[in-house]
Amino acid sequence: MNKERPLILVVNDDGFTAPGIRTLIRLMKTLGEVIVVAPDSPQSGMGHAITLNSMLHAERVHVNQGELIEYTCSGTPVDCVKLAMNKLVPRKPDLCVSGINHGSNASINVLYSGTMAAALEGAIEGIPSIGFSLLDYSPDADFSQSEDYVLKIAEQVLANPMPKGTCLNVNIPKVKKEDLKGVRVCRQANGNWDEEFDERVNPLGKTYYWLTGKFVNYDQGTDTDIWALDNNYISVVPVMFDVTAHRAIQELKSLNYG
Amino acid sequence: MNKERPLILVVNDDGFTAPGIRTLIRLMKTLGEVIVVAPDSPQSGMGHAITLNSMLHAERVHVNQGELIEYTCSGTPVDCVKLAMNKLVPRKPDLCVSGINHGSNASINVLYSGTMAAALEGAIEGIPSIGFSLLDYSPDADFSQSEDYVLKIAEQVLANPMPKGTCLNVNIPKVKKEDLKGVRVCRQANGNWDEEFDERVNPLGKTYYWLTGKFVNYDQGTDTDIWALDNNYISVVPVMFDVTAHRAIQELKSLNYG
Repeated sequence: MNKERPLILVVNDDGFTAPGIRTLIRLMKTLGEVIVVAPDSPQSGMGHAITLNSMLHAERVHVNQGELIEYTCSGTPVDCVKLAMNKLVPRKPDLCVSGINHGSNASINVLYSGTMAAALEGAIEGIPSIGFSLLDYSPDADFSQSEDYVLKIAEQVLANPMPKGTCLNVNIPKVKKEDLKGVRVCRQANGNWDEEFDERVNPLGKTYYWLTGKFVNYDQGTDTDIWALDNNYISVVPVMFDVTAHRAIQELKSLNYG
Repeated sequence: MNKERPLILVVNDDGFTAPGIRTLIRLMKTLGEVIVVAPDSPQSGMGHAITLNSMLHAERVHVNQGELIEYTCSGTPVDCVKLAMNKLVPRKPDLCVSGINHGSNASINVLYSGTMAAALEGAIEGIPSIGFSLLDYSPDADFSQSEDYVLKIAEQVLANPMPKGTCLNVNIPKVKKEDLKGVRVCRQANGNWDEEFDERVNPLGKTYYWLTGKFVNYDQGTDTDIWALDNNYISVVPVMFDVTAHRAIQELKSLNYG
């Protein structure tokens, strides 16, 4: 192993066979030594979940007879990062990349996203980290149009220190390469899901529900990730793990809590 | 049902039989009409996970022959809030309280916490929301010493508008009532977990891991939740769902992303 090359930890939440992570692995191999630790099954929507009440397995796997160091892990995306850091990486990675997710992690989705939680966990561990997502839920999604940008963003993160306590949330619009207008650094749009639970009855007569819904953007700003994506830009949002509402502290101090 | 009384949604992550939620239900009944939607099994460490690849069940349960409206839900704490809001509450709640959690959700724990994710989901739904946690993991934890404070904080949130886009993360030290010094509004301490995976071999010879670790506080500030708790104060941290690192945006805009 060439000591000069950066070590890149690749994770995701769609599981180790997803086309998105296969694309990301191929791209990252051009930038450094790659180690993959990915869930052995889909873990979409797992947010920052960790496995406390069960054990974890990790298996070395050989995909396409490749020489790449790849592990599948029975846990969540965040478990993958924690287990990688504690047991699997030969040294501290220079970069942690997560994805490429099949589906948007813009706006409020950042909170539900296993992809972004894994990137944020990388940042908590002190590694420059990026989560990549393509706005296409299809397992046959075409990741090729944005490959140059994914590489360029990863190179920039390797070359420049990340703002303290942050990682990057990168979302890519589902458009042809020639329609991509470039990259916008922006803020998380104020939007959320208008849930609709699909209510059904099972053969035994018992009611059950499927979570569905529609994303609603309440934000008119042109400096948001949703605006950027709607206008054919790749959005880059710096995300932090200090979730304190600092500006609210003074206001709350005036209240009498007894 | 008295229309004058506020409607209070009670959730948690330890499951509907946990002493912590039983305490919280009892306290909230003195402040308003209560509806409970809690996981049917422990969901600690589930963070902001939602159930996308499976269905959900909800069951009306009758605890102690009580007249209280209580549901158990097969999903995560955030699922409980979403299902409650979409299918179970008679009207929009005036308050959402989560907990009382058995164990700390101070500092970085806020991200892994199902208790806090449920409260944050309440805030996303536009409900004034609070997560309560006691620094005692024991199932036999004594919640009595802080009951007056829990009530007072809930009353203040009912009486005053919450800072926009926030909920409260309330942690209670494990001390006797007479040693509690009061409440401090503070920020999330900069700390994280130094993981240690306990590696074992199963009877078939296969390696497995248990996630364990030690919390490390890197923060010397006296304005943090960890400081407050170490000094016998109840900590109140306003937490927001906009996780954008706003101060990092300008810095990142100077980089060339291609």
